[in-house]
Amino acid sequence: MNSIKQIVLASLLGALAACAQQPAYMATGDLGVVIERADGKVKIANTTDKTFIAEVAGLGDLSHASIVFSRDEKYAYVFGRDGGLSKIDITTHKIAKRILQGGNSIGGAISQDGRYVAVSNYEPGGVKIFDANTLELKFDIPATALGNGKNSKTVGLVDAPDSKFVFSLFDTGEIWVADLSGDQLQLQKFPGIGKQPYDALMSPEGRYYIAGLFGEDGMALLDLWNTDKGVQRILDHYGMGEEKLPVYKMPHLEGWTIAGDKAFVPAVGEHKVLVIDTHTWQQVGSIDMAGQPVFVMARPDHRYIWVNFAHPDNQYIQIIDVQTQKVVKQLEPGKGVLHMEFTPRGEAVWVSVRDSDQVQIYDTRTFEKLKTLEAKSPSGIFFTNRAHKIGL
Amino acid sequence: MNSIKQIVLASLLGALAACAQQPAYMATGDLGVVIERADGKVKIANTTDKTFIAEVAGLGDLSHASIVFSRDEKYAYVFGRDGGLSKIDITTHKIAKRILQGGNSIGGAISQDGRYVAVSNYEPGGVKIFDANTLELKFDIPATALGNGKNSKTVGLVDAPDSKFVFSLFDTGEIWVADLSGDQLQLQKFPGIGKQPYDALMSPEGRYYIAGLFGEDGMALLDLWNTDKGVQRILDHYGMGEEKLPVYKMPHLEGWTIAGDKAFVPAVGEHKVLVIDTHTWQQVGSIDMAGQPVFVMARPDHRYIWVNFAHPDNQYIQIIDVQTQKVVKQLEPGKGVLHMEFTPRGEAVWVSVRDSDQVQIYDTRTFEKLKTLEAKSPSGIFFTNRAHKIGL
Repeated sequence: MNSIKQIVLASLLGALAACAQQPAYMATGDLGVVIERADGKVKIANTTDKTFIAEVAGLGDLSHASIVFSRDEKYAYVFGRDGGLSKIDITTHKIAKRILQGGNSIGGAISQDGRYVAVSNYEPGGVKIFDANTLELKFDIPATALGNGKNSKTVGLVDAPDSKFVFSLFDTGEIWVADLSGDQLQLQKFPGIGKQPYDALMSPEGRYYIAGLFGEDGMALLDLWNTDKGVQRILDHYGMGEEKLPVYKMPHLEGWTIAGDKAFVPAVGEHKVLVIDTHTWQQVGSIDMAGQPVFVMARPDHRYIWVNFAHPDNQYIQIIDVQTQKVVKQLEPGKGVLHMEFTPRGEAVWVSVRDSDQVQIYDTRTFEKLKTLEAKSPSGIFFTNRAHKIGL
Repeated sequence: MNSIKQIVLASLLGALAACAQQPAYMATGDLGVVIERADGKVKIANTTDKTFIAEVAGLGDLSHASIVFSRDEKYAYVFGRDGGLSKIDITTHKIAKRILQGGNSIGGAISQDGRYVAVSNYEPGGVKIFDANTLELKFDIPATALGNGKNSKTVGLVDAPDSKFVFSLFDTGEIWVADLSGDQLQLQKFPGIGKQPYDALMSPEGRYYIAGLFGEDGMALLDLWNTDKGVQRILDHYGMGEEKLPVYKMPHLEGWTIAGDKAFVPAVGEHKVLVIDTHTWQQVGSIDMAGQPVFVMARPDHRYIWVNFAHPDNQYIQIIDVQTQKVVKQLEPGKGVLHMEFTPRGEAVWVSVRDSDQVQIYDTRTFEKLKTLEAKSPSGIFFTNRAHKIGL
């Protein structure tokens, strides 16, 4: 009996020693997360095998949900519409941490160094900045007070180089820059940028922050290399115009493509993609499309631009050849094409087709459909290589 | 005594149960590999903790070794000067597979879809393409025969969009494009591009392949979107010039920086960085430097360019402000600064300092030295986010 105990003891000690070694590693460079907006779930995707490897539930209201990744590509931070901030461990397929940080949130960002996660809130209006490891609140930045007990809604929150976050104030027409490079939070405010900034984008290298205006035509541009010059008005005719065209969906500005010295921009309310010279920020061309563009996304090599559309044309994708600025291909994945995500080096693109509960995978060279995966009313698709990108 | 054993047993069982749960995985998005050229070893780095987590030995001759990563960021393929091709599993810190594929190799690349690894060989002259999983030879591409039983050396091998590899033939002055998008290998040859192409680079988006010429001034440019136009000669005065300046080291062309519509290029044999307009491919400026530039590398946001130098000035790094095109900072890490690698979003840069057996880590905003790690005569530094980049 004793000897058996000793053997058990010895083997247990051995096992313990083995498991006390350094933690196991799992490669995460070819993974991604797909939002299933109807069910408050996400699916974890593998872009090499073109499969879903797991799903994670219990994430709350995921309409308009977005995701950023930790710099090690281990955690996905899910920003829910209900103010939920969920930290998913994509190596274990579990929720590592979840908090309700606000009443009505509209996206977030992760700092360049990966230390902070910021969330942009409608209710209460402002930005909250959390420790990326613990989700403990580090900085609370209420937006400008409106005098009615509320604060301005905040939108267009992105990370910027040198550990900054940049965002816009919808109700008060401001752009704020939050600098977290020191121990203290430094806030720089740019008022009077225009009526009702509703969304924004950062140029790929992380220099230009451009906010779209809902309340008037034109856009507001902040050059982060020259903040002393203040905010500049560009594209004076960009917007709904005098006649206020019927707009089925304001285009996503993250959908902007900046390729070399040209930007390809979804027109508001028109069946057009506009071509902009990024030196002068003036329109130099326009391309007729099958509907009102929503996302205008370049293949990583910038040779082709894939475009999806607002209702009633959201069953189509059209592909523009950047060189000729002509539509060279139209696809019809089905009703409710909501999002497209290219694999990191662009050989394939994943397309969420809400109404047929499908994620369709296309070869970007042949435009051939490679595979169809089932997902419940999928919306946003996010691959882990985003962890390495500035301005998301 | 028994009761104590029982307590020990119970606590051990408890501990075991705990560690039998889902292991605490680490992910690979923030890892990298540092070459220790003298010892045929590499160190595996973690850029979040700024540490080395493991080392892997037995990799042969690592002078001028380079590395590419599998698309899942699990494997590092090490191309050794001795023709060794080693596949390192960075999650287990072991050599998964190693072959001697040629006599004298000079770098390699991985295909856009991750299926193929290609190696460029001096001896025998040509390119060999291997299955990335098994390292089984799939395609052998001997370069043009020289009539003396040898074939041309191949250099400047890079991957290109749509599953292509592009490389140059040193002895016969050609550029070849190998297309692996179909089942069959398709070869497209561009002869007469100039004397002795010695290295090449791909523009960041993967459109322009540019070969430097050792045998004459000027460079050869192939526009992969318009291969029917053939190879174009650019920068007619780029090179050693009439007087044949003493060149301590031909600059690395991968060291070129293309930021927007400007390229920042190391001058050959001169203490200058040249500024090139990428529309006309003509020189539009030059910046005086502390020595003959070797690597001219932009911070990921393109705001600053870090430059190291050939002997006898290889103890310095100088930093150029892209906007003013002036040197704003000089650092002196020590003799033998061989390579620099920026973290994926550029908040830090790792610098290999051969003669002091150090890897030094700098804050790219403050230029402050954050940490020094020990490594035996370190050379190339490669972070896993390269897995997601085109044209390496």
